[in-house]
Amino acid sequence: MSEDHAEAGASSPPQTVFFLSDYGTEDEFVGVVHAVLTAGAPGVTVIDLTHQIAVFDIRAGAFTLVRAVPYLGAGVVLAVVDPGVGSGRRGVCLEVGPGGPAARFFVGPDNGLLVEAAELAGAAPIARAIELASPPDTAGTAGTASVTFDGRDLFAPAAAALSRGVPLEELGHAIDPASLQRLPPPMVEHAQLMNGRRTLRAEVVWVDRFGNLQLAATAALAQEAHVPGPGPGTLDLTLGTGHACTLRRIETFADLDRGELGLLVDASGHLAVVAGQASAAQTLAVIAGERVTLTW
Amino acid sequence: MSEDHAEAGASSPPQTVFFLSDYGTEDEFVGVVHAVLTAGAPGVTVIDLTHQIAVFDIRAGAFTLVRAVPYLGAGVVLAVVDPGVGSGRRGVCLEVGPGGPAARFFVGPDNGLLVEAAELAGAAPIARAIELASPPDTAGTAGTASVTFDGRDLFAPAAAALSRGVPLEELGHAIDPASLQRLPPPMVEHAQLMNGRRTLRAEVVWVDRFGNLQLAATAALAQEAHVPGPGPGTLDLTLGTGHACTLRRIETFADLDRGELGLLVDASGHLAVVAGQASAAQTLAVIAGERVTLTW
Amino acid sequence: MSEDHAEAGASSPPQTVFFLSDYGTEDEFVGVVHAVLTAGAPGVTVIDLTHQIAVFDIRAGAFTLVRAVPYLGAGVVLAVVDPGVGSGRRGVCLEVGPGGPAARFFVGPDNGLLVEAAELAGAAPIARAIELASPPDTAGTAGTASVTFDGRDLFAPAAAALSRGVPLEELGHAIDPASLQRLPPPMVEHAQLMNGRRTLRAEVVWVDRFGNLQLAATAALAQEAHVPGPGPGTLDLTLGTGHACTLRRIETFADLDRGELGLLVDASGHLAVVAGQASAAQTLAVIAGERVTLTW
Repeated sequence: MSEDHAEAGASSPPQTVFFLSDYGTEDEFVGVVHAVLTAGAPGVTVIDLTHQIAVFDIRAGAFTLVRAVPYLGAGVVLAVVDPGVGSGRRGVCLEVGPGGPAARFFVGPDNGLLVEAAELAGAAPIARAIELASPPDTAGTAGTASVTFDGRDLFAPAAAALSRGVPLEELGHAIDPASLQRLPPPMVEHAQLMNGRRTLRAEVVWVDRFGNLQLAATAALAQEAHVPGPGPGTLDLTLGTGHACTLRRIETFADLDRGELGLLVDASGHLAVVAGQASAAQTLAVIAGERVTLTW
Repeated sequence: MSEDHAEAGASSPPQTVFFLSDYGTEDEFVGVVHAVLTAGAPGVTVIDLTHQIAVFDIRAGAFTLVRAVPYLGAGVVLAVVDPGVGSGRRGVCLEVGPGGPAARFFVGPDNGLLVEAAELAGAAPIARAIELASPPDTAGTAGTASVTFDGRDLFAPAAAALSRGVPLEELGHAIDPASLQRLPPPMVEHAQLMNGRRTLRAEVVWVDRFGNLQLAATAALAQEAHVPGPGPGTLDLTLGTGHACTLRRIETFADLDRGELGLLVDASGHLAVVAGQASAAQTLAVIAGERVTLTW
Repeated sequence: MSEDHAEAGASSPPQTVFFLSDYGTEDEFVGVVHAVLTAGAPGVTVIDLTHQIAVFDIRAGAFTLVRAVPYLGAGVVLAVVDPGVGSGRRGVCLEVGPGGPAARFFVGPDNGLLVEAAELAGAAPIARAIELASPPDTAGTAGTASVTFDGRDLFAPAAAALSRGVPLEELGHAIDPASLQRLPPPMVEHAQLMNGRRTLRAEVVWVDRFGNLQLAATAALAQEAHVPGPGPGTLDLTLGTGHACTLRRIETFADLDRGELGLLVDASGHLAVVAGQASAAQTLAVIAGERVTLTW
């Protein structure tokens, strides 16, 4: 990196890095990555999205980024859920087009974690992608790079470099965005039955701390599938176990009595099965990845 | 918001937002709120008090704020423990008088979470209160407001606005501070018995990570109740189960042998039952909300 | 503190405080310490290394600092794992020589937590040490100091003072660095057996979130002990229970099949027993502190 970039970076407002991982907070991993970011881009603001992604659960990490990205300002998303660290999998940085209001760069492993969120942030296909060359900057610390902690040694230095204004192309060589790894989309399908009733079958993509069950169905898809809107109507919910119950179609949590089950459009714009001041996940014994069927 | 406020905010030192919730850190909720705060008030410092308040436990959240508030500098307290989100409950912002050295503004739901801490911060009744009108500022992100995530869509934008200098009255309409919801105070009472002994009965208001049992009795109340000070004396502790044991009246943890039980004035100025390098909660099998009796 | 220091601190770039403790994040302890740091040193960046050190586990805290310190930039390390709070144990601040690139000051209890990390940061013996006199600055908050929360009342104010440029000698009186408490080093020994095979016996000093077992043996010691490098070779691992298994000597996690056990040099430069996309700790039922034997 030339001195010019550092100076340019110092005069423009310091950027923000949004950091997500499966590192947990029991160990010093997250703190050390913060230290590398701060040393490499003084004045940067680092915002932890979460570090409690289940170990190696790329899919949960990708869903979390997709939910978060519409609410992030300009900056760099640094995301590490990386079972393939040390293998041939590429480390990448993606740049999204100027159309999007949100994060401009996405740094992490090329394993499907980043692509969908990056496309959503840019509201368009990814503009440019590079494969990260090698730790761009290890000066300033006594530590040595390793082949097992790319978050610290490869991705964080790249995110710091972008934050202080280093051009993307200096961090590696261009690759075709079409070559990026993608995850299979979550399962969701809807149909009209012979008896005139309608049905929507969907994967539970997320169980949050409150026990709400987010389905793979967006509000737009719900409309297309003719899922009824908030009102007096109810729907039948059938679990994979065959267990069935009734959901009230509501607008917000407060429409439910304590413990009553309902269906609403959640804060991410997805259908979600919820319970009044209680955990739907606990009530129904459902975990992420299960498939449920709505019928009405 | 007029451009003038933004400029005024830019020239004065960036403020601090102190953030407490029951969101946990498994999901991206906390990170997204940080992103909204940083986008809305660039340069703001966000300090997480804790996000591990038990889900919907307004009381635990209120106690935590009361303990923290004497140690906070100037800024905005953003607190969200909100089982009534989406209901008629008001979103409010409270301003405390200029007399207090600590946080000036308190933003969150009107459900009892904020009032006591705000009064403590101002060392006086609350000076002004407003009901938040509606998300004051959603520009700058692609996300849409929802009726289920007021932390992101209502409270954080209000806290950001205050941090960049927007006057309180622009965020909603004035309400009577006397109309704010309040929680019943925790139970504490003391008496002199017929046999000449004295007794203090109190709720355990907090069990901390170390297993210390904080009682609803402040040091001032302990003095009024003639609880003996540190010294050779002991007290009897009786639990709700009838189980009884002896406490040594000590000044600090180090006065206890390993595993020995004691009574001290803790770092928040409350009586607390503690154990030497051990968990009093585990030793006695006591949880928050239980009532215990001291006799001496 | 004279006004001059505050002005000097304001003109130089704000420093970084690296904060480690056993406070957990369930309570407001960590947030309150952040508030004290920010009030005492406006503009300071506070980086949390971790607060999930097991309660009172000085040794785990010391190992964590040693692993983190090579990756920290200039600043103050504030570390509190302090079973002896309120006892005669000293509160100290250590300064490391100008030779080291990393953190310059270490603040915390004199119980062995800080010394090894400070020496590593300075790549030399500790240059200066002081015993902290008493809370140097409680102005600006309504809170009162206590004898049970030195993190808030003694150590954080000292770290804030150093961050704004207060000279070390104003915070207390000089003590001999040789008088600082030290922990016994973790167990590691190697030998050549009668039958020509070699053996290395070592304590498991850390089990991380991913279940990797870090041994007390550094890469340098492994070389001295003639532990084979990455390649086709295998080693026998014997646990304290007598259970034995085979490890492949690998360079990185990706060299292992799913669930297969291996031995590598980890990101901290230590030998570690690991499993392919699985937890070695769970597979082998090993916890930190156990001793294992490698034979080859």
